[in-house]
Amino acid sequence: MYKVKVFITLRESVLDPQGTAVQQSLHSMTYNEVKDVRIGKYLELAIEKSDRDVDQLVKEMCERLLANTVIEDYRYEIEEVITQ
Amino acid sequence: MYKVKVFITLRESVLDPQGTAVQQSLHSMTYNEVKDVRIGKYLELAIEKSDRDVDQLVKEMCERLLANTVIEDYRYEIEEVITQ
Repeated sequence: MYKVKVFITLRESVLDPQGTAVQQSLHSMTYNEVKDVRIGKYLELAIEKSDRDVDQLVKEMCERLLANTVIEDYRYEIEEVITQ
Repeated sequence: MYKVKVFITLRESVLDPQGTAVQQSLHSMTYNEVKDVRIGKYLELAIEKSDRDVDQLVKEMCERLLANTVIEDYRYEIEEVITQ
């Protein structure tokens, strides 16, 4: 079994109104030190071993469904979980 | 300046219908190896140095605004960025 963590973020050039709203809320709560907020998605997948390559599999899933690659970047970490 | 990464996830005991929907979509795309999907949020904050402790600051922001601690867990990583 693999535990996969996927991070999906807006591309640098894409405006993030949700992040701006959060930043403004933080400022109104006196957290003026916050200079930028970007909001993305974080997914945790449990993937069973098969004869397909897990790295290739995750990449395909990101490209085809999880991320919108026009406006989003993604990266992922794969961790093998050994269960007794 | 600090770069802070915040990961907000649903607590284990809380159902994740969005994750279930994504899992079903992945299955319909033949990715049957996927046994579980949990969807959370990923935030990147840029925080300026001040006389307040950055760790304490991030913790407060998570507790007060970023996470709903009744149903969500959070964790964060703080990285100091040295600009020339």
